[in-house]
Amino acid sequence: MSDPTSKAAGTSRRGFLKTTALGGAGLVAGAGAAAAEGDPLITKVQDWASGFGDPVDAAPYGMPIRFESHVVRRNVEWLTESPVSSINFTPIHALEGTITPQGVAFERHHSGAIELSKDDYRLMINGLVEKPLVFTFEDLTRFPRHVLTAFCECAANGGMEWGGAQLEGVQFTQGMIHNMEYTGILLKDLLAEAGVKPEGKWVYVEGADASSNGRSIPLEKAMEDVMVAFYANGEALRKEHGYPVRLVVPGWEGNMWVKWLRRIAIYDQAVEGREETSKYTDMMPDGRARKWTWVMDAKSVITSPSPQVPIRHGKGPLVITGLAWSGNGKVTRVDVSTDGGNTWTEARISGDAKPKALTRFHLDIDWDGSEMFLQSRCIDETGYVQPTKDALREIRGTNNVYHNNSIQTWWVQPNGEVENVEIA
Amino acid sequence: MSDPTSKAAGTSRRGFLKTTALGGAGLVAGAGAAAAEGDPLITKVQDWASGFGDPVDAAPYGMPIRFESHVVRRNVEWLTESPVSSINFTPIHALEGTITPQGVAFERHHSGAIELSKDDYRLMINGLVEKPLVFTFEDLTRFPRHVLTAFCECAANGGMEWGGAQLEGVQFTQGMIHNMEYTGILLKDLLAEAGVKPEGKWVYVEGADASSNGRSIPLEKAMEDVMVAFYANGEALRKEHGYPVRLVVPGWEGNMWVKWLRRIAIYDQAVEGREETSKYTDMMPDGRARKWTWVMDAKSVITSPSPQVPIRHGKGPLVITGLAWSGNGKVTRVDVSTDGGNTWTEARISGDAKPKALTRFHLDIDWDGSEMFLQSRCIDETGYVQPTKDALREIRGTNNVYHNNSIQTWWVQPNGEVENVEIA
Repeated sequence: MSDPTSKAAGTSRRGFLKTTALGGAGLVAGAGAAAAEGDPLITKVQDWASGFGDPVDAAPYGMPIRFESHVVRRNVEWLTESPVSSINFTPIHALEGTITPQGVAFERHHSGAIELSKDDYRLMINGLVEKPLVFTFEDLTRFPRHVLTAFCECAANGGMEWGGAQLEGVQFTQGMIHNMEYTGILLKDLLAEAGVKPEGKWVYVEGADASSNGRSIPLEKAMEDVMVAFYANGEALRKEHGYPVRLVVPGWEGNMWVKWLRRIAIYDQAVEGREETSKYTDMMPDGRARKWTWVMDAKSVITSPSPQVPIRHGKGPLVITGLAWSGNGKVTRVDVSTDGGNTWTEARISGDAKPKALTRFHLDIDWDGSEMFLQSRCIDETGYVQPTKDALREIRGTNNVYHNNSIQTWWVQPNGEVENVEIA
Repeated sequence: MSDPTSKAAGTSRRGFLKTTALGGAGLVAGAGAAAAEGDPLITKVQDWASGFGDPVDAAPYGMPIRFESHVVRRNVEWLTESPVSSINFTPIHALEGTITPQGVAFERHHSGAIELSKDDYRLMINGLVEKPLVFTFEDLTRFPRHVLTAFCECAANGGMEWGGAQLEGVQFTQGMIHNMEYTGILLKDLLAEAGVKPEGKWVYVEGADASSNGRSIPLEKAMEDVMVAFYANGEALRKEHGYPVRLVVPGWEGNMWVKWLRRIAIYDQAVEGREETSKYTDMMPDGRARKWTWVMDAKSVITSPSPQVPIRHGKGPLVITGLAWSGNGKVTRVDVSTDGGNTWTEARISGDAKPKALTRFHLDIDWDGSEMFLQSRCIDETGYVQPTKDALREIRGTNNVYHNNSIQTWWVQPNGEVENVEIA
């Protein structure tokens, strides 16, 4: 993690608080609207300071305070035909740090989120194995457990933006992503138990829901870092995230992270099922579909300011923050531009930069109140640089849904309002 | 993070699943009670596989599935006189990994959890400063933000165990602890804005609740790594954790992590208020109280198996897991004993071992079904070794409430039941 103490203290680096000094005669509070001599919120005893608050048995399982009720997953009704085969979006505009709480982490279901108890849970391994096996949930808990943090991004994240700037909010343009700390067992340990035959080259994974959402994973990836997970962010997976067992496929598209994992089958070739042929393939300019785009390439986006988070405080010190990630490893650098990509400034990476996990960046600027065209670009440990939308369109065209990792532009107006735009 | 791929695959390391192989004639499923030829849970289409589950607009903010309703904070009524000046306990027996979700993270209030909006929030800095200041919430959001993960442990965690093994559950014996990823600003940046006068040596911090919970922090610590936090685990702090602003004092006792932070005053000496004299001091054998025990020393505990998590699956492969932490830095090693401390085996550290943060450990054993006296001991980067309870009592006696970081013993019986015991 970064050292939060690395900035030297002692000198005052900002002027915006000059007016908030307490004079001898009374308080002059607030850089903003609250400024008033003798601000009663600090000089008078308030109700909350003169009585009791909630007791410790008020909420055995706590929920967010009512003032944060806008920070929720949201779906877009016109996007899909049925809410049981649809998606909702993480409110990344309102989050900070790197962890996504399960309660607001985006959901994608192909036939709805099913309720499956641990007692009813079974996992079968069959196909080209020495010993086909069926595990109960308890069986799985007896294998060695591991902990890893990984982002899960829908292949269609940003998909509506191929044709142009459409959606006014980073929650909708880039919110098909979440980042959790998983605990579970390694797929390779399960495969070792069953014994993969030499001719076995592909791992086909299926869920227990009606869609089954079958996907083929090359054996190499399965043996590298794929996890059969039970816990996310310390607690059990929630129903909508695959309780009691989901697959975690670090760095690879979310559709492969099969929920309510029911079957693992070893084959000598890919199944080429619905989810990897008619869906989750990339339509190229020549009308042909490119398959096997599994890795989510390096990407970043500014989460604040953004259309849902305009600047309310006027000019002066402004915190610019966002998220960066790469399916190929660690994020090593994030640059931010305020002039639409003409000039770039390196942002600070805050906290960890874990491989294949969301990485938080911050840049502190002194905003002069003029318009900005905000962009961020991610560079990962392979040296890959996040492309512009134009550069991506040259290869991929605009007849696409999936795998848009291009640079996003926010137009910040002098009044602080922010719009999703494209710049030539 | 640890490399989840570091274990070599290919060889079958366990025999317990020998009976779960699928024969040619039918399925023989499960190592446990579910074993049955042709187990319908894997051979028959179930209800959840033949209809729709929940749509994506079912839960804008999600909650745990109903099967996990036992994983909640619990209070102990006889422990305190009033539930508004009391504590509840994190269900660490049922959690995994390192993150504690806010919804189950223990609470300690001195006059209840208050509801304070961002609009009503003010933070004053006064005392020995060049320029007394009052900040609105928005003012605070304009300072440089940082991200860090830290454990928060009540000084009284384990306090009921000084006199003997009392409570049947790790949730109650060691559950006054949580671990979150915080985002906020550095206290030293706020102090720089106000300008600490040369004679200022102590930082007195107070909350906006009726108790005010004032504590004195040496200036050196305030300038090192203390954070004024707004977010925990990616989202806003919850009401019971100090919304909208709490102090994070990495490695130091939880009582100093003031919630609903209202005032920061610089003085030339400690205030020596109620919370640092009559409370949160250590009663020594000679009847005198030792003050200024701020750092939470290295500690660990096995969370499973434990009294609330008996072994149900019988002998064979058993995952032993627990948590380790140190207020002095990183955990470098955790040892586990199955024979009450006569012999020790080094456990695996899973995921990160961040400084001043909860660290997860695992040890995989082949349990022969005989009784065990399970213990864990933590070693941190300073070389400090977690003491036995006897060693701690030699110095501290038994007339204590606070700062018990001694080794915990669980007696695992041949039937798998687990009890909290002391061994001579």
